[in-house]
Amino acid sequence: MVILGAGPAGLVLGNLLLRAGIDCAVLERSGRDDLRHRQRAGFLAPNTVRILARNGLDDGLRRHGQEHRVCEFRTEDGRFRLDYGRLGDKEPHTVYPQHELVADLLARFLGAGGRIRFDTEALAVSDADGPDPSVTVREPDGRPGRWRARYVAACDGRHGAGRRSLPPGSVRHYRRDHGVSWLGLLAEAPPSLDAVGYAVHPRGFAGHMARSAEVTRYYLQCAPGTRADAWSDERVWDELDRRMRAPEYGPLTRGRLLQRTVVDLRSDVLEPLRHGALFLAGDAAALISPSAAKGANLAVLEAELLAHALTAALTGGDRAALDRYSDRCLARIWRAQEFSHWMIGLLHEVPGPEGSSPFQERMRRSRIAALRDSPTQQDWFAENYVGI
Amino acid sequence: MVILGAGPAGLVLGNLLLRAGIDCAVLERSGRDDLRHRQRAGFLAPNTVRILARNGLDDGLRRHGQEHRVCEFRTEDGRFRLDYGRLGDKEPHTVYPQHELVADLLARFLGAGGRIRFDTEALAVSDADGPDPSVTVREPDGRPGRWRARYVAACDGRHGAGRRSLPPGSVRHYRRDHGVSWLGLLAEAPPSLDAVGYAVHPRGFAGHMARSAEVTRYYLQCAPGTRADAWSDERVWDELDRRMRAPEYGPLTRGRLLQRTVVDLRSDVLEPLRHGALFLAGDAAALISPSAAKGANLAVLEAELLAHALTAALTGGDRAALDRYSDRCLARIWRAQEFSHWMIGLLHEVPGPEGSSPFQERMRRSRIAALRDSPTQQDWFAENYVGI
Repeated sequence: MVILGAGPAGLVLGNLLLRAGIDCAVLERSGRDDLRHRQRAGFLAPNTVRILARNGLDDGLRRHGQEHRVCEFRTEDGRFRLDYGRLGDKEPHTVYPQHELVADLLARFLGAGGRIRFDTEALAVSDADGPDPSVTVREPDGRPGRWRARYVAACDGRHGAGRRSLPPGSVRHYRRDHGVSWLGLLAEAPPSLDAVGYAVHPRGFAGHMARSAEVTRYYLQCAPGTRADAWSDERVWDELDRRMRAPEYGPLTRGRLLQRTVVDLRSDVLEPLRHGALFLAGDAAALISPSAAKGANLAVLEAELLAHALTAALTGGDRAALDRYSDRCLARIWRAQEFSHWMIGLLHEVPGPEGSSPFQERMRRSRIAALRDSPTQQDWFAENYVGI
Repeated sequence: MVILGAGPAGLVLGNLLLRAGIDCAVLERSGRDDLRHRQRAGFLAPNTVRILARNGLDDGLRRHGQEHRVCEFRTEDGRFRLDYGRLGDKEPHTVYPQHELVADLLARFLGAGGRIRFDTEALAVSDADGPDPSVTVREPDGRPGRWRARYVAACDGRHGAGRRSLPPGSVRHYRRDHGVSWLGLLAEAPPSLDAVGYAVHPRGFAGHMARSAEVTRYYLQCAPGTRADAWSDERVWDELDRRMRAPEYGPLTRGRLLQRTVVDLRSDVLEPLRHGALFLAGDAAALISPSAAKGANLAVLEAELLAHALTAALTGGDRAALDRYSDRCLARIWRAQEFSHWMIGLLHEVPGPEGSSPFQERMRRSRIAALRDSPTQQDWFAENYVGI
């Protein structure tokens, strides 16, 4: 059994298989240090926390995770807060930086005797639907290698060997470009709000997400095609202040910008999430726009489903769960896509058939007003916001 | 006080003003018989029923209205029912054909001594923001006429003199073409389901709405530009059977088609709903796609608000409510637009930026699945479906 990629999906899967006594190896393109510094999302859904807990993978997040249960919307019509931890299913998020989670999962995997090869780039999965599946790799020293495997789990993201190895026509590829880009920023600054902040502004969306006591994530909607370094730090902070409405609600706490990336809000889904012995999970299965922080949560959920299905197949010869894997994941993926899409429509003027339309903009304001005023709408939001 | 148009908005307004002792005249372009045969929507929201009841205008609907509380969705994934009368605010619709309601309102108005001029076409409202507002008309005999009025209520629809008389730039006009057309049919046949039926089919949407024991309304999505008489009766029924999935769920009860109209799903909103002494209500204020049957309900709500505001202004000299009229209506109009838009997206493949997309189609299926499976989503739906 070979797992491509040592992100949350690959490492949860690896840990679960290892514990079930299944021989597996994780192949990771990056070096060990790079992996531990890959900053990503940090909002874990309650279901994700439960999965990690019941598999004994929650030591770090139990100690250092921060409960988050409030989001604040700032618009031209004022601001309001939703204590979503008291709405819908009454569950909070746990904020725990993804690179910390990955470090925990990795330590656990290695501690239990798991095999992982860093600096090992998977190039292709061959014969996935034939009698002799294998993965060809570039070894750390640059030489070619080959790993035979009964099953291959592609947890190697949207540009990984898993996706690239799907024969044309074997898997359907659904895509959507939302036409919106975000400048993602990691600031060496404490959070400025004790809530997730969503600012809807005529100049574009701005977002504030706590990461830790010292580091905060910000997002600024930018024109598609903007370069990550196009704006000076000062311009970034000025723009964040303006869109977050600093004059009314107070300025943001500034700090050095540690990281800048431009995120084009795009989504895609593969279907089915399988080709013969090759299974897809995490970003390799579906790319989901960061508007609702669902990506890592789907990855963990898929990894657990896949681990159980592979265990049943490899230890008991029961392949029924493997056959159901794709459908079970896809139902959740499409639900998450639909909600993320709704969030994008809530937070931005999204270009419609005739460009962004004043009609749509007014509907968007009405959607936010309903979220502010209707308890039923709030319950619905909370359930989808923390659910998966 | 002059009211343009003798539809639900104009006649509710007329009745309320008359009862408050305010001199008013209704000018109606059609003849009396035409007016009584104008078939329109028949789904009255509980709030609409309450408004009519508290103003003593509900005799007919109390006697002949049918309670409706269930809708059925039929899709490629099966069928399911929502008893929306038990969800959300736990309120049903009352089905009462609009021409019956109009007949009731008219009889009441005339019985109370109300003045109405049939066959009198309003041509323009002049000097609405000046000292001497008036309405120029074509009298029944074809001669020009002129009505002076302190206030003019335009309840004369989207093509009426009210909208036409707004000076360019005085009022903002928001529009949206949903890119979808329906063939609306009135069939001399009893209902085939004891529920509103919404069929989502790869060939397009089909809808079934009870009207009375003898007459049923059907809708068939058709290509934009289709002529109302393009399809034979047989083709209409065959297509309805196919999309409603007669093989699985039983054929529809057929009958003569009494009426066919092509409805292009378009929406618009004017803002503000006032220009000086001219106030807009009903379809003159906003056109709302029939996907969620909100048009007549908004009209009645606006008419009551406007009646109270005009009464305060004309009897007590208090114009505060008149000044708030537009904002109060618009909040409800945009909410209804947003929900109708959601319904359109639920029931059709709506063309997106790059045409109708498989990605969007899968999100649509997921949206329907959420409606089938999530109690919170169902409460939200029920509240918006019967609410206003």
